Amino acid sequence: MNFTSEPRVENGVIERDFTVDDIPGILWTPASAQAPVPLILLGHPGGIRQMHPRLAARAEAAAADGIASATVELPGAGDRPPLPGVEHARADLRRALQAGEPVGADIVDGLVLPLVDAAVPEWRAAMDALLSLPEIGGPVAYSGGIISIGVRLAVVEPRIVAAGLFAGSFVPEAIMHEARRVTIPLHVLLQWDDVGNDRQMALDLFDAFGSKEKSLNANMGGHTGVPRHAGEGASGFFSRHLS
Amino acid sequence: MNFTSEPRVENGVIERDFTVDDIPGILWTPASAQAPVPLILLGHPGGIRQMHPRLAARAEAAAADGIASATVELPGAGDRPPLPGVEHARADLRRALQAGEPVGADIVDGLVLPLVDAAVPEWRAAMDALLSLPEIGGPVAYSGGIISIGVRLAVVEPRIVAAGLFAGSFVPEAIMHEARRVTIPLHVLLQWDDVGNDRQMALDLFDAFGSKEKSLNANMGGHTGVPRHAGEGASGFFSRHLS
Repeated sequence: MNFTSEPRVENGVIERDFTVDDIPGILWTPASAQAPVPLILLGHPGGIRQMHPRLAARAEAAAADGIASATVELPGAGDRPPLPGVEHARADLRRALQAGEPVGADIVDGLVLPLVDAAVPEWRAAMDALLSLPEIGGPVAYSGGIISIGVRLAVVEPRIVAAGLFAGSFVPEAIMHEARRVTIPLHVLLQWDDVGNDRQMALDLFDAFGSKEKSLNANMGGHTGVPRHAGEGASGFFSRHLS
Repeated sequence: MNFTSEPRVENGVIERDFTVDDIPGILWTPASAQAPVPLILLGHPGGIRQMHPRLAARAEAAAADGIASATVELPGAGDRPPLPGVEHARADLRRALQAGEPVGADIVDGLVLPLVDAAVPEWRAAMDALLSLPEIGGPVAYSGGIISIGVRLAVVEPRIVAAGLFAGSFVPEAIMHEARRVTIPLHVLLQWDDVGNDRQMALDLFDAFGSKEKSLNANMGGHTGVPRHAGEGASGFFSRHLS
């Protein structure tokens, strides 16, 4: 792991760029921390540079609760080389949506599964590196989308103790099955009127999770319109399970 | 309106029994209030005497936010005379549940609609009386079940500005239609694994509400197992809309 920028200090947060195995990432730590802190892995749809304002805002909220945050670029996003096959599935998706056709399982599988398969080992390698830093102590949570990445991580990575998931993307059938094996506490956000999202799929996924403690928090406001109080609810969830 | 008990002061709350048109009720006001306060109407399934511990706990949480709470006994519950017809529908319901049969629309209508028709004017009369007290200023919210009473009140009573509804009982088709005319902010609690509740009906009702601001908060723990953090989320909702 290499830090590739000077620390930037703003709003009580120290922000540093890093790379792990040449994959770019960002780490935010609370400036006031005196001891090792817990960590939230910030999920996103790809493109950490353009997502930066929203990621930094989430990291600031976590830092106010004494929690560090980190993210890494997704395979095929930002300056990273495209993922074979996914571009093809994305073109199929666009065609289906433009034609008003239902989005078939093969498109969803082609779009999401290669991404999950490639991304999850990278997130785990980033966790190894981040948890070796003296300022990061754990435990670790995953937060956000892509929800299928969060599900796979929750199944395979025992160091992740809780997940706040954003149900805002297509979920392959295979991930639905993996969801039954998730047992950690979950806080699931769903935008009820997200026109590009399959609401029934999100409800089926929530139902499938094997966790004894799971909350579904559905709100209005479209895909990007998660209301402020829902963000506060998610913060409370992470505080309860990490602090 | 007559107060029928001496004030009881406990945990920062003044509790007083009252009657309006011979219907018994309870009023809780924050002991520290210096000026007229907002009011939450505490809904319940009937039987305010046996529900008292849970009602008082909700009233204490509201009082901590500077909000008064009040409730009245439901028609046919506690010491009040039975509602004609409802007892009959309740027996039909018990038979259907014991036989493992689906609960028909006629049973749901017979169980809920007479109760809504009788209860709503009583809650409105209680509001008139409570809002005439110098210590109660408004605005007013409805909180809890029976959800069909909350829906009807939200439609017909312009003084109710927000509602936190507990989706834990059968909802007649007629109330589903009324739900489209509800426009106030809503916070809906659903116990996802409530075996005696029709989850799809609750989701359909949530979808039907006409409100631009509505949140669904679904949790595990069975009918009576609403987790503490869900209660805190509801408190935040009332604070935002009443204070």
